[in-house]
Amino acid sequence: MFDQQMARKAAETLGRVRREKPLIHNITNYVVMNYTANALLACGASPVMAHAPDEVEEMVSLSRALVLNIGAPAPHFLDSMLKAGKRANELKIPIVFDPVGAGATSLRTGSAKRLIHDLKISVVRGNASEVLSLTDEAYRPKGVDSAHSMEEAVGAAVKLAGELRLTVVITGEVDLVTDGERICRIFNGHALMRYVTGAGCTATALIGAFLAVNKDSVEAASMALAYFGLSGEKAASRATTPGSFQIALLDALYTTDERELLAGARIQT
Amino acid sequence: MFDQQMARKAAETLGRVRREKPLIHNITNYVVMNYTANALLACGASPVMAHAPDEVEEMVSLSRALVLNIGAPAPHFLDSMLKAGKRANELKIPIVFDPVGAGATSLRTGSAKRLIHDLKISVVRGNASEVLSLTDEAYRPKGVDSAHSMEEAVGAAVKLAGELRLTVVITGEVDLVTDGERICRIFNGHALMRYVTGAGCTATALIGAFLAVNKDSVEAASMALAYFGLSGEKAASRATTPGSFQIALLDALYTTDERELLAGARIQT
Amino acid sequence: MFDQQMARKAAETLGRVRREKPLIHNITNYVVMNYTANALLACGASPVMAHAPDEVEEMVSLSRALVLNIGAPAPHFLDSMLKAGKRANELKIPIVFDPVGAGATSLRTGSAKRLIHDLKISVVRGNASEVLSLTDEAYRPKGVDSAHSMEEAVGAAVKLAGELRLTVVITGEVDLVTDGERICRIFNGHALMRYVTGAGCTATALIGAFLAVNKDSVEAASMALAYFGLSGEKAASRATTPGSFQIALLDALYTTDERELLAGARIQT
Repeated sequence: MFDQQMARKAAETLGRVRREKPLIHNITNYVVMNYTANALLACGASPVMAHAPDEVEEMVSLSRALVLNIGAPAPHFLDSMLKAGKRANELKIPIVFDPVGAGATSLRTGSAKRLIHDLKISVVRGNASEVLSLTDEAYRPKGVDSAHSMEEAVGAAVKLAGELRLTVVITGEVDLVTDGERICRIFNGHALMRYVTGAGCTATALIGAFLAVNKDSVEAASMALAYFGLSGEKAASRATTPGSFQIALLDALYTTDERELLAGARIQT
Repeated sequence: MFDQQMARKAAETLGRVRREKPLIHNITNYVVMNYTANALLACGASPVMAHAPDEVEEMVSLSRALVLNIGAPAPHFLDSMLKAGKRANELKIPIVFDPVGAGATSLRTGSAKRLIHDLKISVVRGNASEVLSLTDEAYRPKGVDSAHSMEEAVGAAVKLAGELRLTVVITGEVDLVTDGERICRIFNGHALMRYVTGAGCTATALIGAFLAVNKDSVEAASMALAYFGLSGEKAASRATTPGSFQIALLDALYTTDERELLAGARIQT
Repeated sequence: MFDQQMARKAAETLGRVRREKPLIHNITNYVVMNYTANALLACGASPVMAHAPDEVEEMVSLSRALVLNIGAPAPHFLDSMLKAGKRANELKIPIVFDPVGAGATSLRTGSAKRLIHDLKISVVRGNASEVLSLTDEAYRPKGVDSAHSMEEAVGAAVKLAGELRLTVVITGEVDLVTDGERICRIFNGHALMRYVTGAGCTATALIGAFLAVNKDSVEAASMALAYFGLSGEKAASRATTPGSFQIALLDALYTTDERELLAGARIQT
């Protein structure tokens, strides 16, 4: 039922992240900066947070992946993201984009649409509502958290992926990854992850780390989500409350090894 | 000695927060954003952090309470707070305000006075020094942390509450809540909470969550503080050092249930 | 082999920090604000984070040390740092500076050079690469993390310290502190500290706390690093994974007492 070859590749890719320690440049929101940086360190990557318009082009040129995240947008954020993204595109550095809150306000929906159209992005990761809001169809927001089911969003994800030639990820109870043709589903994860603010943002950053060492976007995203979800399961076996769980999750990102990922990845292709 | 009816209402209100998961819009400082968001999640509410002037009006209109906090003020923060606050007033969405550091710098004192006069605010929460600095009386700062005792500030709190027709909360060893007529005192809490940066900011955000489902400001503030203080006591029974305690506090916010709050709330009316 | 008099002074200085609770004004980056504030609280100091150009002069005048940190530079950060720094210089309040990422981008290298030349700074703390980038010698960045060894940087540190008449600290496996004449080496610390984002920034802030009560920069920096490193060793005896370790480190900063520091400080003069 689950793809053993993908599990094997996931383990190998995690090993590569740990050996190569790729620098991941994050332009992300203030709420999750600290946790994201710690998660990337625990995974084995090397994070840098930098969002000043005056330095993002230089910083991204030192990096092996760029993570853009529009949660809690600050002044000049769009400028910085466009500058960094264009430089990344020139240098063929992969970009992962997290449209946090797209659909909730026109600033976020508009910025998200601008970024996915003006930049060549490898992977977009959001919840069902965020992904739905990126399509041209008339979108009706129901709030900030995802108020739409995976089923409502799959069609939009496949269409968006095909039209823009990028990989779209919808995370939820089961995660979905598609480039418009291939579809993967990842069955790892735990309900307590919803109580860690920025869990989704962390998933996006980890996709960046995997993409830094494996250029196949569908594979990199699926494998990173299996690794993150499996770490969540492992954390939940040690902690059953949100505070302890968020710390156990960092621990699990660090301790989950290639053998465990090979045995535990539940990716359906 | 303690008000059993308030304890019962506190338990019911906590239950409502958990069932209704109200969206709480926070325009807050960078230091505490992550912890505040995690505390609101642990409580059962749904946090959103958004401070860009271009989106706060839309965001607050999706929310059931607005939390304003002037710690570490950033560019445009006052614009954003006034915009969001005016929209909240139009939509009758309650506002809780935390005048962090008022009295320490004229930027903070001036901004705080502007906000409480230009907006219709439901609850202001600060320490004794911060509350004193908001009154018209000649205020002499003694530093950033509260350097004034509760006794020095009670009169100012009652007067401020009566004049501006809002609820004033002074947190300290014992917390005080007043609308100028009623006075409640809350005896829950633990000394280790002072070692968690942003504990006061967290209290303010939790008042927002309770106010989202109970419009009586004196009740909502008193009950939220009893819940927060009781969670602190519970955390202190598991952790005696600040790092472990801040995590245990998030855990306790999550595990404290209606029955425990009914039994443990120490509110004097 | 290790200097017992320095260990004794370190213990005494830690005691003074805890008795006097000096207010430490931090203009620092968003990634580490929360952790730095919690670390200063755990140490016994009183942190305030404030970076608005309109209030930093007032805020620093209430403080006993100023900590400047250019990680994740935001709009106006240089203005704020120069304003606060000049006021601190007028009031003879010591300044500690952390040139995070200097060498990686010209914004950071240029800002760092401007700050160390325009202000009278007491202590600069960085890794080997950051310190090397501050000297006039042709510097070739190898990335964001330190890619240079301590040996490559010692000469530059001594020269920089002598020329600018400040104390230069290079942290690494062994830490080095020099004012151009004296050289101290600190052998405390643990490898897991590299997995806590902002560990270096925390070291810088703790140097600020020690400097607030002991004006000898070489001593204050050496003693703060011994205290921080020893706390790291203590944390590592309780936690072997990065999430738990970062919490255990805060706990250890709180529990490490004068007796332990006297026995455990490994400072070579």
